Amino acid sequence: MGEFFKVVKYDYAWQKIKEYFPVAQVEEISLLDAYGRVTATSVNSPESLPGFNRTTVDGYALNAADTYGCSESLPAFLEMVGEVKMGVTADFKLNTGQCCWIPTGGVLPEGSNAAVMVEYTEKLGEDTILIYRPVGPWENVMQKGEDIKEGQEIIPPGRRIRPQDIGLLASIGINSLKVYKPYTIGIISTGDEIIPINDKPEVGQVRDVNSYSLAAAVRSCGSLPHIYPIVRDSKKKLKEVIDQGLNDNDVLLLSGGSSVGTKDLTLDVLLSYPDSELLFHGIAVKPGKPTLAVKIGSKMAIGLPGHPVSALMMFYIVCAPALRFIPTLEQEAFISMNLPSQAGRDDFIPVKLVYEDGRRMAVPLLGKSGLMSILSLADAYIHIDYEKQGLKQGELIIAYLF
Amino acid sequence: MGEFFKVVKYDYAWQKIKEYFPVAQVEEISLLDAYGRVTATSVNSPESLPGFNRTTVDGYALNAADTYGCSESLPAFLEMVGEVKMGVTADFKLNTGQCCWIPTGGVLPEGSNAAVMVEYTEKLGEDTILIYRPVGPWENVMQKGEDIKEGQEIIPPGRRIRPQDIGLLASIGINSLKVYKPYTIGIISTGDEIIPINDKPEVGQVRDVNSYSLAAAVRSCGSLPHIYPIVRDSKKKLKEVIDQGLNDNDVLLLSGGSSVGTKDLTLDVLLSYPDSELLFHGIAVKPGKPTLAVKIGSKMAIGLPGHPVSALMMFYIVCAPALRFIPTLEQEAFISMNLPSQAGRDDFIPVKLVYEDGRRMAVPLLGKSGLMSILSLADAYIHIDYEKQGLKQGELIIAYLF
Repeated sequence: MGEFFKVVKYDYAWQKIKEYFPVAQVEEISLLDAYGRVTATSVNSPESLPGFNRTTVDGYALNAADTYGCSESLPAFLEMVGEVKMGVTADFKLNTGQCCWIPTGGVLPEGSNAAVMVEYTEKLGEDTILIYRPVGPWENVMQKGEDIKEGQEIIPPGRRIRPQDIGLLASIGINSLKVYKPYTIGIISTGDEIIPINDKPEVGQVRDVNSYSLAAAVRSCGSLPHIYPIVRDSKKKLKEVIDQGLNDNDVLLLSGGSSVGTKDLTLDVLLSYPDSELLFHGIAVKPGKPTLAVKIGSKMAIGLPGHPVSALMMFYIVCAPALRFIPTLEQEAFISMNLPSQAGRDDFIPVKLVYEDGRRMAVPLLGKSGLMSILSLADAYIHIDYEKQGLKQGELIIAYLF
Repeated sequence: MGEFFKVVKYDYAWQKIKEYFPVAQVEEISLLDAYGRVTATSVNSPESLPGFNRTTVDGYALNAADTYGCSESLPAFLEMVGEVKMGVTADFKLNTGQCCWIPTGGVLPEGSNAAVMVEYTEKLGEDTILIYRPVGPWENVMQKGEDIKEGQEIIPPGRRIRPQDIGLLASIGINSLKVYKPYTIGIISTGDEIIPINDKPEVGQVRDVNSYSLAAAVRSCGSLPHIYPIVRDSKKKLKEVIDQGLNDNDVLLLSGGSSVGTKDLTLDVLLSYPDSELLFHGIAVKPGKPTLAVKIGSKMAIGLPGHPVSALMMFYIVCAPALRFIPTLEQEAFISMNLPSQAGRDDFIPVKLVYEDGRRMAVPLLGKSGLMSILSLADAYIHIDYEKQGLKQGELIIAYLF
């Protein structure tokens, strides 16, 4: 009538998964494909940026000292000696009392150290410019190396690349970078009662929700899911699919077969591999006690509960942090109500995050833990530790974003 | 020496873009591909979930009334009459005083209304079960329709689909859904000084940062970028590329050519189309005054500043909210310092979000606005309104996440 679990603590289970999780590979990719990827190494700048002194306004390049003391009523009079064109170094230099037109981004000509905006100037005849506002040295100028110095670390390892990072890398001419290769994850649903989602369940049957939700969850971690056909509870068939899955992927996620039940075969098959090692079978957590992990050579198989909500929650709790190359996004929040919890078990509870006067409140989504409609409303989950008897309303806790 | 802008207010510019932005198309896609997409319609459930009464524990199905008053010292004695198998409706029904083994997820047999966990039971001989804890009616059972009722809206329109939403949809057998089709966005960098990023800039040249950072920013909004080759300041060449870009895409992003300068040709070319209409040319904002928009038939061309930081910031400010099908993610935060701002201009300032005692603080990233290295540190931007003279330290503001 089903064997009992030797349940382990959540901490133990997570440490085992972390310790034996397949090592992340590194690949070099084009900067064009880098959005959303995670850097495996730091990036240092091969050069200074900007590479020359550049104006940040349309106006006149000049010596700041020539503008000191000028005002609306007492403008400075400067001789205009030329025009800087975009993308071209001026073939003249400025002396005291001289200025030249310069567009935004133009290279400051030799002899100048500032620019004044065209709005604060007036042209008088052919070659005289009136300046109505003083500027300080290097005002309206971006100096060489001001943005980035040669050799400086500009992107640390473990950074998820955003558009502004790509801009930064492009600006110093870096067109490829080393990132973590996505894990490949095989997803196998098992159980006689599982039917394809297009079918209408008879009494006693349930749709294969896990293949869909786990594949999306794997994608949300930046990994690549491979869905295998549903396996009925036949040991031979299960062995075939697990053989294939271990061959094709870094990690296998099996759901359904890890529940206590007369037809529980998953563990038998996983432990039939000569280089297999049971990491744990059963975790003292709510909502996913029947979770197991087996190391098979350099790969790992994780057995998740069959129930879709438990399977997805357990994925977030023990798989997602291993798949993501950066920490799970954490946000501090105040718990909105007293929340009892049974000691001797780690509780993970989905929450909705709401804001009141700039305070982030975590509202536990209670009701039966099996409701997918509730999980669909959640933004994050919270963790009530093994030792804790519960949380007090207003306590500051950490919400782990899905 | 360059014409002056007729600058418009930010509000006006954004309203114009919103009003004339190409209408989002809708497409039906497979549930397997739905992760991260945004629903165009609501989804209502065609059926109840679960479709039958199901246990949530391994144990015994029984009548709750038969357990009333039982305890560790005074267990209830029930007759075990059979076993429910997964995926199969029991071919027997339970009478008072009877129970049957049932695995998690099993269908409750007729005549039973609760389940008791195996941990609180003991088997005595062949067919007697001792129950040590009472259960209430429907305890450890998920009742038919408890998760979702037939006809209920389960996903609203405008929802970005997450793994738990996919799980919810799979569980009611919905295998496709209507989502917004990604916009196609052409990206054109213009300017004599722009060189490919692999080249080493001579004095006066800058790398084509915008093609890279804007493409990534477009992707971050769920849209599809098409990068066109850099266009030197030749009106003929510019016209050719814009022709092609308007043909291939919903929206064109041009950068570089909208700055005041003797070689400014973009606007001329855009307004040369017979069905073109200038929406605005110049916005009273920092950091991106030289931004323009032209409606051309059902399409739109947006001219962004040439400077990479300004171009990316203006993308986030006036393009991203139109491309995303859901509102830009906003978070309340307290501003960490006094921040002066010039009235008569909308200021947009990149900030880093940090946490102190559960309070989210927005730390403005100051320094010259042209530094891509600063933008790369930012999590969000804040908006100081046209009328405002600045922000006071500790003021509650809204941070718009990149």
